[in-house]
Amino acid sequence: MDTNSFSSLFSPRSIAFVGVSKDVRKWGFIILNNIIRGQFQGSIYPVNPKEKEVLGLKVYPSVSEIPKPVDLAVIVVPPPAVSGVVAECVAKGIKSGIVITAGFAELGGEGRRLQEEMVKIARGGGMRLVGPNCLGVLSMDVNMHVIMPSIHPMRGSLAIISQSGNVVSSSIARGNRWGIGFSRCISSGNEADLHCEDFLEFLEEDHETKVIMAYVEGFRDGRRFFNIAKRVAKRKPIVMIKAGTTEAGAQAAKSHTAALSGSDSACDAMCKQAGIIRVQNIDDMFNIGAALLHQPLPRGRRVGIITAGGGWGVLASDACAKAGLDVVRLSDETIRELNEILPAWWNRGNPVDLVTGFQRGGLRNCINTLLRSRQVDGVIVLGAGFRAVTERLSRHPEAESHVSSDFTSNPMVIDDIATFREIPTLMSRYGKPIVLASDSAAMAEVGWESGPFKVLRDMEIMCYPLPDQAAEVLASLARYSEYLGR
Amino acid sequence: MDTNSFSSLFSPRSIAFVGVSKDVRKWGFIILNNIIRGQFQGSIYPVNPKEKEVLGLKVYPSVSEIPKPVDLAVIVVPPPAVSGVVAECVAKGIKSGIVITAGFAELGGEGRRLQEEMVKIARGGGMRLVGPNCLGVLSMDVNMHVIMPSIHPMRGSLAIISQSGNVVSSSIARGNRWGIGFSRCISSGNEADLHCEDFLEFLEEDHETKVIMAYVEGFRDGRRFFNIAKRVAKRKPIVMIKAGTTEAGAQAAKSHTAALSGSDSACDAMCKQAGIIRVQNIDDMFNIGAALLHQPLPRGRRVGIITAGGGWGVLASDACAKAGLDVVRLSDETIRELNEILPAWWNRGNPVDLVTGFQRGGLRNCINTLLRSRQVDGVIVLGAGFRAVTERLSRHPEAESHVSSDFTSNPMVIDDIATFREIPTLMSRYGKPIVLASDSAAMAEVGWESGPFKVLRDMEIMCYPLPDQAAEVLASLARYSEYLGR
Repeated sequence: MDTNSFSSLFSPRSIAFVGVSKDVRKWGFIILNNIIRGQFQGSIYPVNPKEKEVLGLKVYPSVSEIPKPVDLAVIVVPPPAVSGVVAECVAKGIKSGIVITAGFAELGGEGRRLQEEMVKIARGGGMRLVGPNCLGVLSMDVNMHVIMPSIHPMRGSLAIISQSGNVVSSSIARGNRWGIGFSRCISSGNEADLHCEDFLEFLEEDHETKVIMAYVEGFRDGRRFFNIAKRVAKRKPIVMIKAGTTEAGAQAAKSHTAALSGSDSACDAMCKQAGIIRVQNIDDMFNIGAALLHQPLPRGRRVGIITAGGGWGVLASDACAKAGLDVVRLSDETIRELNEILPAWWNRGNPVDLVTGFQRGGLRNCINTLLRSRQVDGVIVLGAGFRAVTERLSRHPEAESHVSSDFTSNPMVIDDIATFREIPTLMSRYGKPIVLASDSAAMAEVGWESGPFKVLRDMEIMCYPLPDQAAEVLASLARYSEYLGR
Repeated sequence: MDTNSFSSLFSPRSIAFVGVSKDVRKWGFIILNNIIRGQFQGSIYPVNPKEKEVLGLKVYPSVSEIPKPVDLAVIVVPPPAVSGVVAECVAKGIKSGIVITAGFAELGGEGRRLQEEMVKIARGGGMRLVGPNCLGVLSMDVNMHVIMPSIHPMRGSLAIISQSGNVVSSSIARGNRWGIGFSRCISSGNEADLHCEDFLEFLEEDHETKVIMAYVEGFRDGRRFFNIAKRVAKRKPIVMIKAGTTEAGAQAAKSHTAALSGSDSACDAMCKQAGIIRVQNIDDMFNIGAALLHQPLPRGRRVGIITAGGGWGVLASDACAKAGLDVVRLSDETIRELNEILPAWWNRGNPVDLVTGFQRGGLRNCINTLLRSRQVDGVIVLGAGFRAVTERLSRHPEAESHVSSDFTSNPMVIDDIATFREIPTLMSRYGKPIVLASDSAAMAEVGWESGPFKVLRDMEIMCYPLPDQAAEVLASLARYSEYLGR
């Protein structure tokens, strides 16, 4: 795809919104409302011959009657009308279109014919299309929120390309929950014209994007996809779900986006070769994608674990071993250093159990000591931040009144905050990742305006709700690091 | 263990709290505060020779000087003082003790000796002990919240026995998040005297308990455990994590509770034979435990999936197939019935994609139709409830002001609420489980006072954040049903 079409798609100065509606229950209203909510920086021209004004915007009877140049058309008219709209867009000189409308190849028969017709007209006129049957495209540097559900991500460096709209909104939801921002969100739908590999090529050069997540049900041109991916993965990590890997899943994929799923083991082998980090579910995709934004890659698989309780330490050790990490035996020197920090009865092993040693500065000093150790390539920290949360989340009605409202004045909470703040510095000083997991993270509600988890949110550092997830994340970083030959 | 000791432990009329402190950072203060917050129904007698009053309660210089009979002693004094306190308790005729204090067998050497001494004194005097090195015991019917972290569960029918205190608080946290209540929470610690199998025996007959969760690092008497479990599992489901299954995990377990972990494959075989539902992590344990509270067991493995979007449907199909469920082909009759409910272009397959058919009553009618189908043993519903959440969770600052505050007046939200309310009736009418998964659940904040997820919370029905979790839950119900020979 030429640069022009990409810039008209991701950095449009103006959008024609074709199929606008006054009915608040219709996508022709909801999506326009989302675009306005998102504070799109350019001009918006709604189109509908039957309306004069919607949401405070002048409505044009047709695309051709828009008085100014248009970069991007967002199309929500019914399937039989789409080809006509595309022809009008071509005549108007519009270079890009996002076809939200469903009811094309995924239905077979007439739907497939309509889809082919639409693509032929667009391509013949130098216009490129996203969709049909897609949830939209978000391009955060220009505040472009073309999206069906009313969910708005924050701006950041994570991109997603997805053959499922669901998976886009699931990812945005996780981003909003954990404070991770996006650069571009692309719901590619049926991929009648532009395919996921086209977007991969765009993201390769996109300065806004550091990490790419992908959800794929089927490849139209698997060879091309993996060739591009292999090149991209050397510069930017790709974390991918390949769905439709079982017979039941493949069947579902066929009726979803008309995708043919192909062999699972072949895909696995190609991912390994291309350096794609393949994952099994949305949480893993998001967890690993988020980690790759700010975590340095470990130089090996040796992990040091710090825990604020034994059970989580045991579960993390099991999970690390299963994920292929080495819960390393700490050197005598490291043990001696930890002796200086921890109470006399500490367990002298890995995981390092802070027990009651979770005192002022104790956590920070332990992290420092493990990072400094030559036996350790990365550190998992379990259970941090709980003091703020147990104070806040006591559910017993009688307890509520006893909860201190200024929990951030608690010296131990202040200590947690200071420790969390130092994490980026520590990681860059030692070039080693620090992966956090804590129940408290799962309990910390989105709206917190203060406290340790707000600090993490602001730094886009996730704290995973399960020790297993931290292990999986660190193992993925280690494998990717090995692929890159670092 | 005789009934007397169990009733003094789980239904005490009075508690001696030995080792009370005025220092708000010490467990001697925090735990007493939690007991008071929890509104314990009986008398509390704090003990410390150096204090007169703590938290408004008269403090006694010693156990022997408490003027009234005492059922249970909670002991938080340092390790070398514990045996002396136990001896005093025995002299006072106290039948049960919870030893919170750590620093015993898990440290080896002198710690092990102190632990043996303490047990000998207790047993000699007819007193039974929980711990040492434990987080506490909660017995919800008498509001007994003997617990280290200030986290209070709701009352319900889920019990947990755990060799890790962490895992107890992790479970309570999940309960509070999803609205699931507990009967008893038992942190068994080093199990110097009472073992997890003793508690299993108690829970077998406990009228407050419907479902038992267990976290075990090592069995002292594996044969006895599995014999008891086999009997219990016929009456009440047991969902268990066996940790320390890798070398790294076993090593960590040894320093945590001095447990010896044993062979993983042997444990697996014994679990299958005893009908124990074995799981790998805390989320699975809680998810499956919660489902068993109110979901009828499916008669087979055939699942019908309803989805509000294709991608989640594909992921759920893959996950079901991998979990051993059969994403069944729907009968012509069922398809015809669905034709009456859904738009003409619906996908006519399983998963049933509601697409724009998510209209008034559509979801409810689809659930009904699938439950009625003779091809279907259980239904997974994906994506329900999203309309309330997208309205609420839009993170864009400009959007906040556009969000309707009375989102529950939205007719589609009202419809979701009505559908959710009917779930228990539908399940009992057809004797088939309805398992929900939705991103919206993960986004729905704990504090919601209204809306569809509040309705689910009030019914103790979970909505899982990932389709994979719903599949795992339904598959576990199916396997347990097969074990019971239903």
